[in-house]
Amino acid sequence: MIVVMKKGSSPEAVQRMVGRIEAMGLKAHVIIGTERTVVAAIGEKRDGERETLESCEEVEKVVPILAPYKVASLEAKREPTVVEALDLKIGGGAIGVIAGPCSVESEEQILASARQVRAAGAKGLRGGAFKPRTSPYAFQGLKEEGLKLLAAARDATGLAIVTEVMTPHHVELVCEYADVLQIGARNMQNYHLLQAVGETDKIVLLKRGPSATMEEFLLAAEYILDQGNQRVVLCERGVRTFETHTRFTLPLASVPYLQERTHLPIVVDPSHGTGIASLVPPMCAASIAAGADGLIVEVHPDPSRAMSDGAQSLTPDAFSQAMEQCRKVAAALGRTM
Amino acid sequence: MIVVMKKGSSPEAVQRMVGRIEAMGLKAHVIIGTERTVVAAIGEKRDGERETLESCEEVEKVVPILAPYKVASLEAKREPTVVEALDLKIGGGAIGVIAGPCSVESEEQILASARQVRAAGAKGLRGGAFKPRTSPYAFQGLKEEGLKLLAAARDATGLAIVTEVMTPHHVELVCEYADVLQIGARNMQNYHLLQAVGETDKIVLLKRGPSATMEEFLLAAEYILDQGNQRVVLCERGVRTFETHTRFTLPLASVPYLQERTHLPIVVDPSHGTGIASLVPPMCAASIAAGADGLIVEVHPDPSRAMSDGAQSLTPDAFSQAMEQCRKVAAALGRTM
Amino acid sequence: MIVVMKKGSSPEAVQRMVGRIEAMGLKAHVIIGTERTVVAAIGEKRDGERETLESCEEVEKVVPILAPYKVASLEAKREPTVVEALDLKIGGGAIGVIAGPCSVESEEQILASARQVRAAGAKGLRGGAFKPRTSPYAFQGLKEEGLKLLAAARDATGLAIVTEVMTPHHVELVCEYADVLQIGARNMQNYHLLQAVGETDKIVLLKRGPSATMEEFLLAAEYILDQGNQRVVLCERGVRTFETHTRFTLPLASVPYLQERTHLPIVVDPSHGTGIASLVPPMCAASIAAGADGLIVEVHPDPSRAMSDGAQSLTPDAFSQAMEQCRKVAAALGRTM
Amino acid sequence: MIVVMKKGSSPEAVQRMVGRIEAMGLKAHVIIGTERTVVAAIGEKRDGERETLESCEEVEKVVPILAPYKVASLEAKREPTVVEALDLKIGGGAIGVIAGPCSVESEEQILASARQVRAAGAKGLRGGAFKPRTSPYAFQGLKEEGLKLLAAARDATGLAIVTEVMTPHHVELVCEYADVLQIGARNMQNYHLLQAVGETDKIVLLKRGPSATMEEFLLAAEYILDQGNQRVVLCERGVRTFETHTRFTLPLASVPYLQERTHLPIVVDPSHGTGIASLVPPMCAASIAAGADGLIVEVHPDPSRAMSDGAQSLTPDAFSQAMEQCRKVAAALGRTM
Repeated sequence: MIVVMKKGSSPEAVQRMVGRIEAMGLKAHVIIGTERTVVAAIGEKRDGERETLESCEEVEKVVPILAPYKVASLEAKREPTVVEALDLKIGGGAIGVIAGPCSVESEEQILASARQVRAAGAKGLRGGAFKPRTSPYAFQGLKEEGLKLLAAARDATGLAIVTEVMTPHHVELVCEYADVLQIGARNMQNYHLLQAVGETDKIVLLKRGPSATMEEFLLAAEYILDQGNQRVVLCERGVRTFETHTRFTLPLASVPYLQERTHLPIVVDPSHGTGIASLVPPMCAASIAAGADGLIVEVHPDPSRAMSDGAQSLTPDAFSQAMEQCRKVAAALGRTM
Repeated sequence: MIVVMKKGSSPEAVQRMVGRIEAMGLKAHVIIGTERTVVAAIGEKRDGERETLESCEEVEKVVPILAPYKVASLEAKREPTVVEALDLKIGGGAIGVIAGPCSVESEEQILASARQVRAAGAKGLRGGAFKPRTSPYAFQGLKEEGLKLLAAARDATGLAIVTEVMTPHHVELVCEYADVLQIGARNMQNYHLLQAVGETDKIVLLKRGPSATMEEFLLAAEYILDQGNQRVVLCERGVRTFETHTRFTLPLASVPYLQERTHLPIVVDPSHGTGIASLVPPMCAASIAAGADGLIVEVHPDPSRAMSDGAQSLTPDAFSQAMEQCRKVAAALGRTM
Repeated sequence: MIVVMKKGSSPEAVQRMVGRIEAMGLKAHVIIGTERTVVAAIGEKRDGERETLESCEEVEKVVPILAPYKVASLEAKREPTVVEALDLKIGGGAIGVIAGPCSVESEEQILASARQVRAAGAKGLRGGAFKPRTSPYAFQGLKEEGLKLLAAARDATGLAIVTEVMTPHHVELVCEYADVLQIGARNMQNYHLLQAVGETDKIVLLKRGPSATMEEFLLAAEYILDQGNQRVVLCERGVRTFETHTRFTLPLASVPYLQERTHLPIVVDPSHGTGIASLVPPMCAASIAAGADGLIVEVHPDPSRAMSDGAQSLTPDAFSQAMEQCRKVAAALGRTM
Repeated sequence: MIVVMKKGSSPEAVQRMVGRIEAMGLKAHVIIGTERTVVAAIGEKRDGERETLESCEEVEKVVPILAPYKVASLEAKREPTVVEALDLKIGGGAIGVIAGPCSVESEEQILASARQVRAAGAKGLRGGAFKPRTSPYAFQGLKEEGLKLLAAARDATGLAIVTEVMTPHHVELVCEYADVLQIGARNMQNYHLLQAVGETDKIVLLKRGPSATMEEFLLAAEYILDQGNQRVVLCERGVRTFETHTRFTLPLASVPYLQERTHLPIVVDPSHGTGIASLVPPMCAASIAAGADGLIVEVHPDPSRAMSDGAQSLTPDAFSQAMEQCRKVAAALGRTM
């Protein structure tokens, strides 16, 4: 249920409501909007609850949430969620661009990448320090050393750091260095990991699993939201289909579809979504035209020497041109990047 | 092989080359470009052929075609193919928009549709007279009566008529009324039908089958080209995947992917590609941003009363707004609609 | 609706019922069972029809058909359909095996194949004379010459001939030579072709399209049944998925799923379903264990020299061993082959 | 590389070889076969290594492993791996059956289930104590209390306990109670979890992810093997495709395909693979016919009251009949259950 508080309800009134909801054995999520505050009451439904809450003085109305994802739904919160870290702003009309190499490889590489993507307009720096790799024998990332290099790149450029965390017991360590915690596609339904990042106050970039339905995707986000962390960004990165000419199939219709159902911002990853560098720029522009709240793009100073994902990484020049096109499309549609 | 003729080769020289190629047991396709003429020689490869042809006086060079699709490949023809019928122009930078109802239902309905989509900027009118329907008990179209109504709509509005032909023995009849023959997704590999439309001089709009690979799609086009009809337009209309929240999954990356391999124009059908009217406008804009040469969109004067595909049909107003957005995106990217 | 006639209704009574149904503007399909006769009345539902028919003296009851496929449904006919041609018998407990090369290549090849598969227990001979090929430049079959060789193989061995027909205007020709008309997977929704074979009295083997749902598959069968031909065999031959280690993904659960919904027999094609010869024998045995009414298997005297589908063709020896395993599984489950 | 030791090499000689391999910076896996012992040397390849090892006295030969999965490959070990826990034996011709409810719900439910599946021939008891659920609001299992009930069921019946572990920090706890650790489909690429169970001495049942390729599946197994735990069982449980009439699409061809590449046993889960109870028995029989080394089947004393997966759970009676059919198929093919 959504308990809509009357306009101008005091923080104390909201806290009293939380107490009442918890006394009923339900979980309370306070969602503060610009217009009014609502409290989502989540849990097993019992007779009479709604009437009881509705009768409280400071309550305007109580409405059920029909979607299986509760806190993520537009029913719970109509205003778009906006997340910010340093200059990176995603959601609510703002288009945030995150770019950088697949993996952090060396100080030189990550600093060069950071400067190049910053110059082209990115506000976030991606780079993997802990790398989930299909083979146990492939390069697994520089680990904590990689995190330190990312932090140095932030110091040098002011970019917000976006990096993956793979397992609950790394969350604390990654939080020391990162501004945005990335949950990779393979871990979209690693529920203990979702809960662990849900307990932090970091922005979480949640990648869609390659065969996840929209409902499974939103319910994975709900695992994070349910722990109290409301700064979740959804990332469409392509799905696995019979198509083999691209690495994955990138279904951009998921952007407007999700926007009709959730207040969470949605970014697109055309690098994994296609796997082919030459297809990335047109798909960046198409993502913006489809209404995406941001992009996450693989860029490497020298893709041919990348330790991972070279085939889908843009050169800094190609990225710069792609950003230019995106800015034009955004401007044409009345948005800014 | 591609036999590239010297600049300024006379038509007689080209005809002599055709004769030589045919004498070798190969099929010759003359492809006239703005810069020079090439003759594609298709057939089983034998030793010495290339050298023999290369030694002819009017030949500049002979190069092999590596792609399995020959006449469709960029190797055979680097300049984009442009097709035109009345005011409808698709390819070579020109963005052509085709719109209208799923089925022709009545004179009133098709004339209203035609006027409305024309006003919004469409240059082609779609409308099914012969309808392939999953169930034998569903409405199968008005058949020849529907064709006549389409022709009347063309007379009234100047729109080029795009309508489906389902079987070889209807080709002649449909050609009497239509400007563009549509091959539906279910018939993408109906090879006798492809050959039959390949023998006409009409533009053919070839829809991608819902589980066709890019190579199968281009080879289906090749069946048409191989009969001598070079006015083929490819149409991406979505593929069948595990996703069920949309009717099909619309992979826009196929637009730039195809453009790297073929000179044929590529249009997108976001109506079938999503199956949900509210998702069509953002996907129209995204298609243009991805580089599509055109759109084919379902529009109905009153979608709630449509005899087929109502859920994915735009109202005339929604279509008009979508076109406005598309024009802005096209202009931003230096293209015109 | 299904009009269930009283036990022992005379042919005249059945004919009177057909007349009544047609007078209502409905289509009548007489389905003669061993126990009783029913008449399926197909068409737009109107008030009062059921009551009118139910009041006829020779009628036991009238029941609606809920499935979208009518004549194909178990509601219309509970007894399994059994088809027979020469010694080939499929359905109703009988397991029929069809085997032979992908394409008819020469008299020697098809006669050798026929003798070998007959010796191993097959009762039908497959072999393509008209070949639908992805590329217009690939071998398209021996055409009528191939049909004649098939007929000669029937004369020599007594095997029933199963061969593909690709387009309506070939139906008459193929009927002259074949016992079973095969509709290929690419043509599962080529509705004019389905109607054309529905007008013949030949058994039709309808292959599932690689992305067809069960409902689309049964509705394609319904197109044939609706023309009056009730001798339809469904063929599961694998679907297109993200899996690339096999040519297609073979979902054997479709066998019992279909058997819960239709009286039509279901055969499995493990050759196309896997695309790899070594996987064919275990999938033959698995098909029988899953309850299939038959198999269609590619066998070639010398797979390494096959003009098409060599990788998935069994040698005669391998086929013979596979049949031996299948007979054991069938016997264990109380069935015979 | 695989270092094949001479017949009759002493344990000391094997240990010396391990030392040599590790001194080269490679990882050594000792694989003891009935005929001879091999040592797999895994790591970055450098010149001269192979020659150096081959020159050792106790070495018969050194061969490269071409497959990307090394220890899992048939190249590393030709003999099938057999795993055993109590009476449960899987692999090497032995067919092991695991059955039981989706979730442990109560002492009464799990004990009844255990007795019923034991009576029908199962040797392992499945039951979820920690449940990965799509929604954070769904029943998440009885947790440690569930593990205790499972252990009690083992005490009462002698069945080996198979239960899921979801996150690395639960591994120790689950190991206290379980005989077989299950890695669920959602966690197939949760690499830290794979490594954690790889450090135990328990049998690991690794479920295939719903969009995992065969190579990804085997490489996930390799993560476990690489930690030294060689008791891994692969489980095919269906993949996600466009098919919606079943919960997943169950591709039984993966059984023989995997058996051509790995020595690890393969079991099939027809309950998740179909999602429909009536389809489970025929798919059990088909799995055995396809060569599976075992089955894992959901059985519930009263499926209509199950807290999860009721639609796909067999009643004890249906399971008992299904086992009877499986035994007949196994016997027909010369195998025992």
